[in-house]
Amino acid sequence: MAAINRQFRLASRPVGMPVSSNWNLTEEPVAEPKDGEVLVKVLYISLDPAMRGWMNEGKSYVPPVGIGEVMRALGAGKVVASKFDGVAVGDYVGGIFGVQEYAVVPGKAVNKIDAPVDRLPLYIGALGMPGSTAYFGLLAVGRPEPGNTVVVSGAAGAVGSIVGQIAKIKNCQVVGIAGGPEKCKYLTAELGFDAAIDYKAENVYSALRTHCPNGIDVYFDNVGGDILDAALANLALHARIVICGAISQYNNTTPVKGPSNYLSLLVNRASMTGMVVVDYLGRTAEFRGAMVPWVKEGKIKTREHIVEGFEKFAETLLMLFKGENEGKLVIKVAAD
Amino acid sequence: MAAINRQFRLASRPVGMPVSSNWNLTEEPVAEPKDGEVLVKVLYISLDPAMRGWMNEGKSYVPPVGIGEVMRALGAGKVVASKFDGVAVGDYVGGIFGVQEYAVVPGKAVNKIDAPVDRLPLYIGALGMPGSTAYFGLLAVGRPEPGNTVVVSGAAGAVGSIVGQIAKIKNCQVVGIAGGPEKCKYLTAELGFDAAIDYKAENVYSALRTHCPNGIDVYFDNVGGDILDAALANLALHARIVICGAISQYNNTTPVKGPSNYLSLLVNRASMTGMVVVDYLGRTAEFRGAMVPWVKEGKIKTREHIVEGFEKFAETLLMLFKGENEGKLVIKVAAD
Repeated sequence: MAAINRQFRLASRPVGMPVSSNWNLTEEPVAEPKDGEVLVKVLYISLDPAMRGWMNEGKSYVPPVGIGEVMRALGAGKVVASKFDGVAVGDYVGGIFGVQEYAVVPGKAVNKIDAPVDRLPLYIGALGMPGSTAYFGLLAVGRPEPGNTVVVSGAAGAVGSIVGQIAKIKNCQVVGIAGGPEKCKYLTAELGFDAAIDYKAENVYSALRTHCPNGIDVYFDNVGGDILDAALANLALHARIVICGAISQYNNTTPVKGPSNYLSLLVNRASMTGMVVVDYLGRTAEFRGAMVPWVKEGKIKTREHIVEGFEKFAETLLMLFKGENEGKLVIKVAAD
Repeated sequence: MAAINRQFRLASRPVGMPVSSNWNLTEEPVAEPKDGEVLVKVLYISLDPAMRGWMNEGKSYVPPVGIGEVMRALGAGKVVASKFDGVAVGDYVGGIFGVQEYAVVPGKAVNKIDAPVDRLPLYIGALGMPGSTAYFGLLAVGRPEPGNTVVVSGAAGAVGSIVGQIAKIKNCQVVGIAGGPEKCKYLTAELGFDAAIDYKAENVYSALRTHCPNGIDVYFDNVGGDILDAALANLALHARIVICGAISQYNNTTPVKGPSNYLSLLVNRASMTGMVVVDYLGRTAEFRGAMVPWVKEGKIKTREHIVEGFEKFAETLLMLFKGENEGKLVIKVAAD
């Protein structure tokens, strides 16, 4: 008898925060790979803020997930059948596997992970898409110089925590913005940030003024909204703002709040540039070449927030938007 | 008996649109230049949107005009006394002379204009600061490539009209946004723009969709507000937005309207960069080297809107914010 593949499918598009009726939990027999394809048993599913955008109708950097389709997600798993040369049964692989227990995908669309199974979450975190986003967003778009002041929002998250640590490696002054005293303590005491601002307890504009007396040279934005405006009001001359995300705006039922202080770009001859990590897929070797040693040497510390249970997907996704995760949020679907 | 120098001084900071009580029209004897200074009889005063910003309190790219001070303004005039080697009585010069009939300024702060007196308005327009703003804003910040679609707002103004014509010289598809059928006709029939959008009569978002089927590669923004948002919603991949001004927002009594569609920067990996022309003062020779021949050969057409009478300054300034000027707005203070 064929094994069963459970899947979260998009039932309807959310208005504001996703709710349970936006999902259908379906079951179907596990499919067979065709020539050139592999069958992956999904062990870990990556939960990322970008997933909220994929649920919306309309033009973006990728097509939206269609109604009735399996929800798009990155993940890591083990190859259990292969009709593709170069990927063998037993290999650990990463890729876009969706929110399901088994995925049939083109063999050329997976990347092999040469690491023990308990390291897979690292490969969909600091050594995966979020790490790559941090690396290229900061270095290729933000272009910090030694001595620069770098500010990052969502600083305790999967991307922000890496941005700040890379900036420290590059000899910058680093200020993180996060929600709550635990996250802030994590940034300064464990990750080596120079300062942390608790946006739930502090006036971010004033705190940035205090911690960035010479202004912000690079602002890496994951959140948008009022925090982006507070950063704009504290720019240094020729500052670079990297627009990586805007999690504060993703579940709006009203129009996105545009940055009222955008004319600070003019006053400071500053720039605001959007980045999408898929543009840097061709530079994965460069990224891994830098990051793997940094992680190995402890120069970059990583943390995964692992929730066990495939069926918990819908509620776990919301943790991202409530700021409840600490580090990279991952669902553990199955043991090896 | 000493000649009299009339001056418009800032009496109070405007809230919203400037009103007559924001000004004091004062008189004092014409001052004598000291060593290193020159005395200029002001013949033309340049009226620029940026002047509205200089009237506000607070940090900007230049200090605000102080209460009681002569209003800052660019202008052109004739040297009537000189204690500076290299500038002689009778020379025509440009510089920051303020809204007054005579100015004493350091000799090194003026630039000589080697042209007949009736060409002076050109030298504070297309061959002066607005022309330089257009030239460097478009070419150094916007970086259009041949075949790109370039959109400019405030397109019939002193800066916008030059931006569009330079973009045509650079073999781009050029769309101008302006207010009213006369200005739009001027853009297409006289200046060679490919299309013009009348923002007072058309839905700018839809019109941009029509005229820019492949999206906007370079958007040169002089106006901000809803037009900036319409442009953001029509960007091509890797688009560059030049933030040169935001005339729609300068007289707000409510907070500036931030661009709600700024996340289009992310979707399109686009950038939005502020520019201030004073950063390019060191490249004036490059600018003049390109622009003077273009103007001479008729490749760039210029138009000055000349209002006669120093005492009309306050009401004439408002023409900029009501969109009543056609071309570079200048006050003629005196005949040679």
